[in-house]
Amino acid sequence: MDFIKYLDGGFSVIENLEVSGAREGKFGVTIIVSRNSTASAVFTSNKVVAAPVKYTKNAIKNGLISAVFVNSGNANCFTGEQGLKDCETLVELLSRDLKIPKDEIAISSTGVIGREMPIDIISKVAYESISNLGSEPENSLAAARAIMTTDTFPKECALEVTLTTGETVKLAGITKGSGMIAPNMGTMLSYIVSDAVIPANEINKALKKAADVSFNMIVVDGDESTNDTCLMMANGASGIDVVKDGKIDPNFQEALNCLCIDLAKKMARDGEGATKFIEANVYGARNLEDARLAAKSIISSSLFKSAVFGGDPNWGRIVSAIGYSGCDLNPDIVTISIADDEDDVDLVRKGEILAFEDTPYLERAEKIMQSKNVTVNIDMDLGDGCATAWGCDLTYDYVKINAEYTT
Amino acid sequence: MDFIKYLDGGFSVIENLEVSGAREGKFGVTIIVSRNSTASAVFTSNKVVAAPVKYTKNAIKNGLISAVFVNSGNANCFTGEQGLKDCETLVELLSRDLKIPKDEIAISSTGVIGREMPIDIISKVAYESISNLGSEPENSLAAARAIMTTDTFPKECALEVTLTTGETVKLAGITKGSGMIAPNMGTMLSYIVSDAVIPANEINKALKKAADVSFNMIVVDGDESTNDTCLMMANGASGIDVVKDGKIDPNFQEALNCLCIDLAKKMARDGEGATKFIEANVYGARNLEDARLAAKSIISSSLFKSAVFGGDPNWGRIVSAIGYSGCDLNPDIVTISIADDEDDVDLVRKGEILAFEDTPYLERAEKIMQSKNVTVNIDMDLGDGCATAWGCDLTYDYVKINAEYTT
Repeated sequence: MDFIKYLDGGFSVIENLEVSGAREGKFGVTIIVSRNSTASAVFTSNKVVAAPVKYTKNAIKNGLISAVFVNSGNANCFTGEQGLKDCETLVELLSRDLKIPKDEIAISSTGVIGREMPIDIISKVAYESISNLGSEPENSLAAARAIMTTDTFPKECALEVTLTTGETVKLAGITKGSGMIAPNMGTMLSYIVSDAVIPANEINKALKKAADVSFNMIVVDGDESTNDTCLMMANGASGIDVVKDGKIDPNFQEALNCLCIDLAKKMARDGEGATKFIEANVYGARNLEDARLAAKSIISSSLFKSAVFGGDPNWGRIVSAIGYSGCDLNPDIVTISIADDEDDVDLVRKGEILAFEDTPYLERAEKIMQSKNVTVNIDMDLGDGCATAWGCDLTYDYVKINAEYTT
Repeated sequence: MDFIKYLDGGFSVIENLEVSGAREGKFGVTIIVSRNSTASAVFTSNKVVAAPVKYTKNAIKNGLISAVFVNSGNANCFTGEQGLKDCETLVELLSRDLKIPKDEIAISSTGVIGREMPIDIISKVAYESISNLGSEPENSLAAARAIMTTDTFPKECALEVTLTTGETVKLAGITKGSGMIAPNMGTMLSYIVSDAVIPANEINKALKKAADVSFNMIVVDGDESTNDTCLMMANGASGIDVVKDGKIDPNFQEALNCLCIDLAKKMARDGEGATKFIEANVYGARNLEDARLAAKSIISSSLFKSAVFGGDPNWGRIVSAIGYSGCDLNPDIVTISIADDEDDVDLVRKGEILAFEDTPYLERAEKIMQSKNVTVNIDMDLGDGCATAWGCDLTYDYVKINAEYTT
């Protein structure tokens, strides 16, 4: 898409935006200051929600946010009344120091569930983070780093989009993974800022659309977190309104989709213990919902994820995963291929198996399965539903990381 | 339950029943000959079903089965017309040799999906298996062994039940796991024979009830197989009718439930790579369906399964797994405890967290999590729905087994 230009520098590309991050051991604090921004967010659909999710759901109701406080190391979940008090303590700290009304501050947490917040340590790291606020690329990187838990690399993305009017606006975001990643919104913390002018209700619509094709289409382990939050702010620094005649500029929506997909793919690639990245493309499904079910089922299958780790072209597990996903499927007409950057081979063509033992198909498939990036393509030939989902392999290290997380 | 007496010897406890097993490398053949039995079966709900499932669904329609042929090593799934022809070839072989009408023979397969059946090897092993038919305990054990794939031990169970009339009948069964194990019927091959007199339609009703509290309540990896079959036969050798006035004897139903639960628990215990057995008991759910959702969600969570492997009492992951299961939950009144054979400790009591760091609760919890058998008890205090589910930990070896399965 030639109207989108990816940029380096993360949040630093946005005017009137200051961010920071600081860390002490496993406790990190990220702060995003984007004064007087219109804002909206999507949250976890888990029925057990962390205190900061409850707090921020309320804070964001008026559609105006000036700062976001995020801590890593403790999820502040299942922490009762004390959990909500801790949210207020941290929001007050930020409010006092930055002279921002309390009701314009959002808060998120990620980490261990069911442990009281170590409020002294987090406050200390918070003051350090505040003293680091800035607008440089290194500030964005520090912000992306401080929200990490088991992530192995910081995740940020920035881009400039040329609107259909010829004007340009910018979007930037950071995110963290990398376990407890499953469909149904969020499954992560993501913060997006744009310099566009856009009302909060339009942010809400655009963000939901973008989340549906990005964050909701990745799976690491099928566990949906209690803290998932994707929050977007628009500070209007560009002076350019992306909503005309009640309609959002389609190029802006596409750019937001691309930004979210870029962040989501980085999360999948950095799934806990992952050594390989998996993309599942489903075409020709009966409808969009079926396509999403099938694509997510493939990347969720522990058996297929293990096979990818082992470099084993066990496409029977792909067929099986589609079969139990609940989507319509006619095995007699399905086409399945796998691909990497160099090769693309049909394993099943219109229901006919090609990849039997001792065939060149299976040999090529085995080679593809050794790649770092494995793409699965399914053409169901039943309709025009299509969807893409992203995930990673299931490895010894996933087990190791999660066997030892709290201890 | 004092009307149930567990017996040794597996299938050997049933009169007029001959079974056998033989194996060559990864290809095994189990044969069960129970002439003129009424029969019914439940099958996988995966939309991709193996050729033998299609074949047996048809064969069992008339409610009369005299023999079952089972091969391991190849699932005969996604094998097109040839797959169905291979079923007929094997059924004919058995029919000819044992003088049983073809339409009284059921067939099952388990193993790799999407590979043509090595019909020569399987026929050869089939002849060997036929020549081994017998009624001794070792025949039953051989039958239980020959259907194994990645299972580490054979699984059989036998019992005698005293009916409400004072008469006794017997039930025996074998099963195999141990990957691709997920809710929604079956997820395994199981064969049950009783010496009771019971019409096929009553077997069907009783078997569905038993499967709902046993096979459908275990999860190893959430992948549902294309070949799942649970087939039950009654050969009437005892001459005792367990259906009186159109109602099945409640003790017989209870005994069938117990037999299926025993087999299901053995499957969960032998889940691929498992080192620990997990039981999740949910009480006080809004209704039965909610209780089942919650119990299965706990034992399905990759995060909690990894925590059990690591011996880490990360009960936050239990709460989270219930939260995304879709069941009703009020975190403010829930009680969560974990137990092993020696201790039972509340972690959360009516919403209040007890197991904070440096408390005796957490210390005891850590000790329990080191046990081979970990039980999780949840009281949701919302109604009278209760359910139990069984599973195993997620280990390095699960990944290893499934990374290398076909290669």
